[in-house]
Amino acid sequence: MKILLPDTAPLHPALPEGWEAVTVDARAGIPPAHHDADVLVVWGASRRHLASAAEHLAGLRLVQSLAAGVDGILAAGFDEDVVIATGAGLHSRTVSEHTLALLLSLVRRLPESREAQQRHEWSSEIGGLQPLHPEGRLTTLLGARVLIWGFGQIGQTLAPVLAALGAEVRGAARSAGTRAGFEVIAEEDVLAELPEVDVLIDILPASAHTAGAVGEEVLAALPDHALLVNVGRGATVDQEALRAALEAGTLGGAALDVTEPEPLPQDDPLWDAPRLLITPHSAGGRPVGADERIARNLRALAAGEELLHVAAR
Amino acid sequence: MKILLPDTAPLHPALPEGWEAVTVDARAGIPPAHHDADVLVVWGASRRHLASAAEHLAGLRLVQSLAAGVDGILAAGFDEDVVIATGAGLHSRTVSEHTLALLLSLVRRLPESREAQQRHEWSSEIGGLQPLHPEGRLTTLLGARVLIWGFGQIGQTLAPVLAALGAEVRGAARSAGTRAGFEVIAEEDVLAELPEVDVLIDILPASAHTAGAVGEEVLAALPDHALLVNVGRGATVDQEALRAALEAGTLGGAALDVTEPEPLPQDDPLWDAPRLLITPHSAGGRPVGADERIARNLRALAAGEELLHVAAR
Ligand SMILES: NC(=O)c1ccc[n+]([C@@H]2O[C@H](COP(=O)([O-])OP(=O)(O)OC[C@H]3O[C@@H](n4cnc5c(N)ncnc54)[C@H](OP(=O)(O)O)[C@@H]3O)[C@@H](O)[C@H]2O)c1
Ligand SMILES: NC(=O)c1ccc[n+]([C@@H]2O[C@H](COP(=O)([O-])OP(=O)(O)OC[C@H]3O[C@@H](n4cnc5c(N)ncnc54)[C@H](OP(=O)(O)O)[C@@H]3O)[C@@H](O)[C@H]2O)c1
Repeated sequence: MKILLPDTAPLHPALPEGWEAVTVDARAGIPPAHHDADVLVVWGASRRHLASAAEHLAGLRLVQSLAAGVDGILAAGFDEDVVIATGAGLHSRTVSEHTLALLLSLVRRLPESREAQQRHEWSSEIGGLQPLHPEGRLTTLLGARVLIWGFGQIGQTLAPVLAALGAEVRGAARSAGTRAGFEVIAEEDVLAELPEVDVLIDILPASAHTAGAVGEEVLAALPDHALLVNVGRGATVDQEALRAALEAGTLGGAALDVTEPEPLPQDDPLWDAPRLLITPHSAGGRPVGADERIARNLRALAAGEELLHVAAR
Repeated sequence: MKILLPDTAPLHPALPEGWEAVTVDARAGIPPAHHDADVLVVWGASRRHLASAAEHLAGLRLVQSLAAGVDGILAAGFDEDVVIATGAGLHSRTVSEHTLALLLSLVRRLPESREAQQRHEWSSEIGGLQPLHPEGRLTTLLGARVLIWGFGQIGQTLAPVLAALGAEVRGAARSAGTRAGFEVIAEEDVLAELPEVDVLIDILPASAHTAGAVGEEVLAALPDHALLVNVGRGATVDQEALRAALEAGTLGGAALDVTEPEPLPQDDPLWDAPRLLITPHSAGGRPVGADERIARNLRALAAGEELLHVAAR
């Protein structure tokens, strides 16, 4: 039995008895010598790679993605009996670390400190004796009311860290309830809650339904001091409305790791919006626990047991 | 009985029966009408304020500081039977939040992302598919070996958050052992451990003994990819040696919230050192839980019980 590993990540999964692993170029077609593969692991694959796999791997039983989203794989035309498993959860720790970095950078005024540093200026407006909760500005997560919109794997990894830092954390998802010990409100109640939110964290997946979720109405409902962080998908934020809110001063600040489109075009006015940080989709991009996930699903496949995170076809 | 509160912080401590609170200008002498005060709370006081208190408050029993360091109060000449209590612990949460902000900003390459943003550049060198542990660079706290030098109130508040983010955390203090569940090494063993350290966090107090603790020898012992964060006292770092290491590329990056002297002079070459973030002593500066601490020590004083954090005279 043969498993093909992509050359785009250093992978060394433990293999069941009788299995052989081969590393292939994830940007190229599958070499004929490996058209007998049983399993294909996908990470940073080109469309050509996926199409070649769908066409030539006649005995393929499983496509194991290391990414959370598998739209590209679903579109590649694999036979219906090929199981497609997503990399759900493999990015929760890295994305939540990056979200925290972006949020703390805004809260602790690091971009402004950096600008003062470039002017060789020790700013007594930023440092020294300060009120813990100054009027009209969020400068600590202690007591901050945080709403995580999209409260799945990543949100539930991030929430306890924010809570440990003293924030009051709630989630928002498609249905209300308690998840991982946190109160979750339903999406239809989000708008009414926003006036009481200091930090809105968007970890929504892209879908027709979530497109533009953070638009004019949501931005207007947030207090003027509120901060927005988006690490979900660019399309969930109305970037025109965001820029307008930042320029009008009706939003305290924002950080985006994802934009629509990506890369953000050179001449997009968003680059220069005030109090906005942009990182180039650098939150995730490095699966954690990939070897264990691959080994886990290989074992299940070999034993005829249930696989983790099988995508609906 | 009368307690004088400074006008430099919004304070509303609960008072025992029969006590009266008066807010006074912390930069001015004590008004004669309040020379009968029993307790003085100190925060951001001028030397003149302290000298006036030491001279005129004949019935004074307690000076309650809200700062961790009380050198200024000790030097003001209060009678020997006046108890001086420090604000130890009131800054642990804010300072550890800021330390995390600085560290994550370095790890997640936010200053470089910001510069790319200013050039309207979506950097594929920073974002997209990346190795989790690239050669010669620290880009996540997952698995990072962190040493917190000075493992007191602040260090012990910070350590569990870093551990929750996946770092391997140890402390260093004057004696070895286990504190708050973390392994602590003795200061004489620090140098030998540094080659295995990815992040050195300096939370040392200023003293003749800690002056220049992070100097040429320590910086040379750290791996070239290591990061340094100092939120203790500026004098604990040899700034010349730090700048040299950053310029030579033998240190991955650094962040300083404290410098020697403060403010850092306009013409100090440190401002422009590569891969260095400077914030203007903005980690603490806002005591958390001050009302509770004041109330706690007032009750103890009234009841003749032991006070919290009495300074050695
Ligand atoms: N920036 C990066 O580098 C990076 C890396 C990885 C992932 N991501 C993004 O992060 C997203 C979330 O990842 P995850 O692993 O946390 O996914 P997940 O576990 O599937 O969680 C998605 C969450 O979003 C919620 N949701 C979906 N549609 C919603 C709506 N209309 N209103 C409210 N909530 C809605 C889901 O609600 P229910 O729980 O009610 O279904 C769920 O709570 C991914 O889809 C991806 O776009 C970004
Ligand atoms: N940046 C800011 O805004 C800000 C705000 C507040 C405080 N600070 C600074 O942070 C410092 C620490 O605060 P804290 O509340 O954590 O103080 P703390 O509870 O007194 O802890 C100090 C720690 O440093 C250790 N230490 C002292 N000398 C040492 C040496 N020579 N070698 C190794 N360890 C040594 C102590 O060791 P032992 O436990 O063995 O005694 C203790 O673990 C303060 O002194 C202050 O300078 C900065």
